[in-house]
Amino acid sequence: MRIKLINPNTTQSMTDLIGDAARAVAAPGTEILAVTSRSGAASIEGHYDEAMSIIGLVDEIMDGPAADAYVVACFGDPGLLAARELTGAPVFGIAEAAMHAATFVATGFSVVTTLERTRIIAEHLVRNYGMQNHCRRVRATDVPVLELEKPESNARAIILAECERALAEDRSEAIVLGCAGMADLAKFLEDRLQVPVIDGVVAAVKFAEAVVGMGLKTSKRGDLAYPLPKTYRGKLAGYAPDTRLADGLAARKVS
Amino acid sequence: MRIKLINPNTTQSMTDLIGDAARAVAAPGTEILAVTSRSGAASIEGHYDEAMSIIGLVDEIMDGPAADAYVVACFGDPGLLAARELTGAPVFGIAEAAMHAATFVATGFSVVTTLERTRIIAEHLVRNYGMQNHCRRVRATDVPVLELEKPESNARAIILAECERALAEDRSEAIVLGCAGMADLAKFLEDRLQVPVIDGVVAAVKFAEAVVGMGLKTSKRGDLAYPLPKTYRGKLAGYAPDTRLADGLAARKVS
Amino acid sequence: MRIKLINPNTTQSMTDLIGDAARAVAAPGTEILAVTSRSGAASIEGHYDEAMSIIGLVDEIMDGPAADAYVVACFGDPGLLAARELTGAPVFGIAEAAMHAATFVATGFSVVTTLERTRIIAEHLVRNYGMQNHCRRVRATDVPVLELEKPESNARAIILAECERALAEDRSEAIVLGCAGMADLAKFLEDRLQVPVIDGVVAAVKFAEAVVGMGLKTSKRGDLAYPLPKTYRGKLAGYAPDTRLADGLAARKVS
Amino acid sequence: MRIKLINPNTTQSMTDLIGDAARAVAAPGTEILAVTSRSGAASIEGHYDEAMSIIGLVDEIMDGPAADAYVVACFGDPGLLAARELTGAPVFGIAEAAMHAATFVATGFSVVTTLERTRIIAEHLVRNYGMQNHCRRVRATDVPVLELEKPESNARAIILAECERALAEDRSEAIVLGCAGMADLAKFLEDRLQVPVIDGVVAAVKFAEAVVGMGLKTSKRGDLAYPLPKTYRGKLAGYAPDTRLADGLAARKVS
Amino acid sequence: MRIKLINPNTTQSMTDLIGDAARAVAAPGTEILAVTSRSGAASIEGHYDEAMSIIGLVDEIMDGPAADAYVVACFGDPGLLAARELTGAPVFGIAEAAMHAATFVATGFSVVTTLERTRIIAEHLVRNYGMQNHCRRVRATDVPVLELEKPESNARAIILAECERALAEDRSEAIVLGCAGMADLAKFLEDRLQVPVIDGVVAAVKFAEAVVGMGLKTSKRGDLAYPLPKTYRGKLAGYAPDTRLADGLAARKVS
Amino acid sequence: MRIKLINPNTTQSMTDLIGDAARAVAAPGTEILAVTSRSGAASIEGHYDEAMSIIGLVDEIMDGPAADAYVVACFGDPGLLAARELTGAPVFGIAEAAMHAATFVATGFSVVTTLERTRIIAEHLVRNYGMQNHCRRVRATDVPVLELEKPESNARAIILAECERALAEDRSEAIVLGCAGMADLAKFLEDRLQVPVIDGVVAAVKFAEAVVGMGLKTSKRGDLAYPLPKTYRGKLAGYAPDTRLADGLAARKVS
Repeated sequence: MRIKLINPNTTQSMTDLIGDAARAVAAPGTEILAVTSRSGAASIEGHYDEAMSIIGLVDEIMDGPAADAYVVACFGDPGLLAARELTGAPVFGIAEAAMHAATFVATGFSVVTTLERTRIIAEHLVRNYGMQNHCRRVRATDVPVLELEKPESNARAIILAECERALAEDRSEAIVLGCAGMADLAKFLEDRLQVPVIDGVVAAVKFAEAVVGMGLKTSKRGDLAYPLPKTYRGKLAGYAPDTRLADGLAARKVS
Repeated sequence: MRIKLINPNTTQSMTDLIGDAARAVAAPGTEILAVTSRSGAASIEGHYDEAMSIIGLVDEIMDGPAADAYVVACFGDPGLLAARELTGAPVFGIAEAAMHAATFVATGFSVVTTLERTRIIAEHLVRNYGMQNHCRRVRATDVPVLELEKPESNARAIILAECERALAEDRSEAIVLGCAGMADLAKFLEDRLQVPVIDGVVAAVKFAEAVVGMGLKTSKRGDLAYPLPKTYRGKLAGYAPDTRLADGLAARKVS
Repeated sequence: MRIKLINPNTTQSMTDLIGDAARAVAAPGTEILAVTSRSGAASIEGHYDEAMSIIGLVDEIMDGPAADAYVVACFGDPGLLAARELTGAPVFGIAEAAMHAATFVATGFSVVTTLERTRIIAEHLVRNYGMQNHCRRVRATDVPVLELEKPESNARAIILAECERALAEDRSEAIVLGCAGMADLAKFLEDRLQVPVIDGVVAAVKFAEAVVGMGLKTSKRGDLAYPLPKTYRGKLAGYAPDTRLADGLAARKVS
Repeated sequence: MRIKLINPNTTQSMTDLIGDAARAVAAPGTEILAVTSRSGAASIEGHYDEAMSIIGLVDEIMDGPAADAYVVACFGDPGLLAARELTGAPVFGIAEAAMHAATFVATGFSVVTTLERTRIIAEHLVRNYGMQNHCRRVRATDVPVLELEKPESNARAIILAECERALAEDRSEAIVLGCAGMADLAKFLEDRLQVPVIDGVVAAVKFAEAVVGMGLKTSKRGDLAYPLPKTYRGKLAGYAPDTRLADGLAARKVS
Repeated sequence: MRIKLINPNTTQSMTDLIGDAARAVAAPGTEILAVTSRSGAASIEGHYDEAMSIIGLVDEIMDGPAADAYVVACFGDPGLLAARELTGAPVFGIAEAAMHAATFVATGFSVVTTLERTRIIAEHLVRNYGMQNHCRRVRATDVPVLELEKPESNARAIILAECERALAEDRSEAIVLGCAGMADLAKFLEDRLQVPVIDGVVAAVKFAEAVVGMGLKTSKRGDLAYPLPKTYRGKLAGYAPDTRLADGLAARKVS
Repeated sequence: MRIKLINPNTTQSMTDLIGDAARAVAAPGTEILAVTSRSGAASIEGHYDEAMSIIGLVDEIMDGPAADAYVVACFGDPGLLAARELTGAPVFGIAEAAMHAATFVATGFSVVTTLERTRIIAEHLVRNYGMQNHCRRVRATDVPVLELEKPESNARAIILAECERALAEDRSEAIVLGCAGMADLAKFLEDRLQVPVIDGVVAAVKFAEAVVGMGLKTSKRGDLAYPLPKTYRGKLAGYAPDTRLADGLAARKVS
């Protein structure tokens, strides 16, 4: 089985971090392919950045080796439903996966994320995913996404402190990490907090293995059916869905 | 006051229809500028089409004459929050506007839209906009968007029949038209149904005049603040938000 | 176009304030008629006061010049649905209008209102209007309605402080003023807070212009149809809806 | 203990029906006082009628013998919160009582009411009372309120048929009767349907006995505190809440 | 009328407290029978304890004298729906009863309960009972259930302090006591807090009298019908529902 | 890794079916242990049966070989939270797992289950799991659980017909099978319906592998912590949680 994790931002070092986290948990027989978007923002920190990330996401789904499952490795899950239209292979968003995983091991969790403005995006996802009963609060740390990677930054300590506040004030029993760039913090935090700390990259990879293992494919009835063939114009003319797409993807067996 | 209506699909004839509907209701002193996206789908009928429409939407906001308000003239309101980040001028989606307008004149309304798969998108918007108490049902007619414009098609009769079913079965007291391409059907339907029939293009134009008239601008605190400056790479390198954006838009007075 | 703003309390000075706020934003060609209820409470600060305000509201709709739209200028929106039965001309509540306006320019807002007991009424309206996703909190300042008008009171400072707390603690991006008597504070607060501050009187006037401009009338199907003709007894015998009402209002063109 | 049931419409025969239903279930030691509003509509069938019924309701609470509990005997529960401000004695609405009773004996119930336009009012109450999980559907029979009492009408058969449809289609396990005028149908329907059929008049009377028996009074903290003393003007000048009210009601022991 | 209150924990002293509270409010003619579960936990403080309490609950319903109504006297309302299947006599949970009672006398209440882990259980009940609009917050005091009874403990003071915080911070207008063991604290707290303080044991007893007085029985249609006859194996073989059950309970008149 | 699937009903043939379905999808290295409850109902078809199944469930968790994950193989997910208290190993309910799996591959699904009375239980789970946006409808086929297994029964055809109605009427894009006994129907239905058909046994097994693979354990903070040590009396004295439990389970490594 091949899982392609797509980093919708263009920062290679984050892709490396994502790939490492995925490989650490992948089952024997699962090939992890972590790719970096070739166009878009260096980090995704708002609605605009998210919207601008979808071209790059589509490129990575359509180009290169096909996969049995895809992961959108950004906590805003940008373009998730568009991606699900493109392929029968299941597609996972890391926010969705992390929240689902949390509900299996706790009745209440807090999300700890980066910027205030991304906190609001996470709150929208909580609502869309039906997680209002389980998510006790979404907390922002005001740490920019790219700060997470800098060893000299205080990011770790800041995030740990916010998690501690979450457990005490929100009365949560688990933490969901609100950014792909936090993937390498899970163990550090879990050792200190003594509660489940869920990273969405890891959750998405394991759920991808699970859903493929169930023999399930994205439903092609209703709104996740392949995009209808039609004309596309201008600089996006090459993105037209047409008969080639339906056949193309179906025929692109994993090699 | 200038209102720029952006047709996120690339079909000029629909833009003409949208512009006509807007001009028919615009107040004296309101200049209507209706523009067609230069890249993307000929019609927007799913999540993928919507995602692919945002580049063209952004281009029309950033290029050409600046406006006091912008309207995203597609019933999926694609890219609405991304657009709101880009400018202080208020931005309106036609689905949002139509639903709001309906709640002022009825306690319950039904949405009548085109394809089944777009019906589901409309249902998501109902939830996002807090319209669950007011929207009694979203109905699909399975009429493709571009069929609406063909005089030889049976679209009018099909839509009328669905509206009649909506009033009888859903017990609604108003109809919201679920596609920009239905803008010219409002009077036809209202005459026959004898209830308010709301077209989102008209609603968005009048709400744009209203909100600008209130002296309100999009809040630049929180998640609708200008996109943070950062590097963009690849074919979208030109879409980087940078200091030029914040100043640029602020400085682009309506001429 | 004529818009009649009805102050459901009997305090003329508040009507003057309301009228001034309305005229400051009215479009050319919009005539503002601000009237004071002739019976009921000097200020509306609870369920009882609200219930007792509806007779006066009805009198102002039925008497004097007819209008193209009516505004109930009290943040509890008392009698809104009853008023909508009485006429085909659209009727707006200032709480409803303010909240709708806020959602066009922000993803989250806080309401700042007067007494604690009115805070609870505002919370009910948030729920009725489907604003739970957008309204982050309703805050009371414990300033009585009639204190707002007294120059010597500390009302301005108190309200400003509460707004500042709202932005910091609720993480809101806009403020909705929770009382008609705050109409003249909007600019003062907006200058200091640097976020949209929405007054419902102004919002209602502009939305009235918008909805009339859309050519919409209150639906007369279902629960907003004209009241059924029937006998009324006792001191309210004169309030019987009868055939005269349906014809009467329809025939009362704006002169 | 004395319970005063107030018929907010002015039709004495309905009051008689209400009083009979109440007396049939009252405990020994409970005195039932059924009074007819002296002003307002002959039947309440919409928002306007409801709003116009509150003056008469207030008159019956404030005049005549004081009671240990009050019942608003109209399925719209008009003026319930205003009434609760006026007195420390508990006040019950028959819709609220009926729905609560139903949830004790079934996991799902349907409401069967009179006119379509009152159906929508009942739906609002379902939402306000938190009954969305329990109320499977609100059904209208299009039988006017005053038809219920006419022996020659087909009302009984129509209502029975609607109840049968409710059980079959809604999968409900109990029926809530949606009008005070249906109070005498409960046994007739229960015998034929073999499920609990709940009349709100009966439910309100028994809950009144219960809550008084618990020693509870309406909370006078927050929004149900006595109305604040203030000036009232015009034809409602006599409805001013003043110090006389707080003392007056407190001092009005049941004699 | 006989009401059987079942203490699902095995602590006799708590049953005595429950019985005393019940007898203090029971109407003349109501016989209170308070019984202690013969198997299960000494105190119920979590999901496991609750699950283990249902055997004992069933034993007390099926054995000994039959009753006209049953009360599950534990704030988690464990086994409530299972109990409702077993009998046509109405069954009440004390959490459900307390919350319903609170909504009759206040628009908002806080629950004050014992352990943090039971707080989460109470929150689930708030959601199941549709009380989200009325319950402002559930607060835990970290007082173990059996501490409540020890005179030397500080439980009273701790609970009073939590109630005071609830009124100030949650802006509630009533308190719901979150444990059967708090039944004797109601008056103490009400005298000091001056708001309604509702104990579920008292509420359940009075609602039982009310519902029986309405002539209602648990619906035997749908999910509360008698359990279907079938084989039971192992140590629970004696718990098989069979024809004897349906007849047995129906035939067990109160003697 | 060892996964123990517990059939909470006492019918061995259903356990065999469950075990077969599990083994068909288990990963290499996953040992499937399917056990039959030794006490309780032959089939679980209501609240009472569910409540009576928990003793047997607990026995199977506590006795025999320990596992890395447990599955409660009944669509009511009975005792799920109690089971999660008992162990740090993750515990899965098949209804929860099936619904989660469905949301990864479709935006809307219908549940097709057995008896009407179990339909209502499934609806409660939909609400508890936050699935209201995704679950379009729960449908009952009135096929008793044990009929599913009888070759001569018409169960297959009945269920297929209900699924077809679900897709057409509910506009769903996936089917969730509402009973462990349907586990062997998934492929039959999927071949004919051409949409994802999700069996909860398969979903639970794969999610168990996933969550264990993520390195997550049930949170022991808050309401899923080990049951507090205390006295248990009567026939359930042996079910007392005590220090032996916390250590016992922790020490019971999978052998």
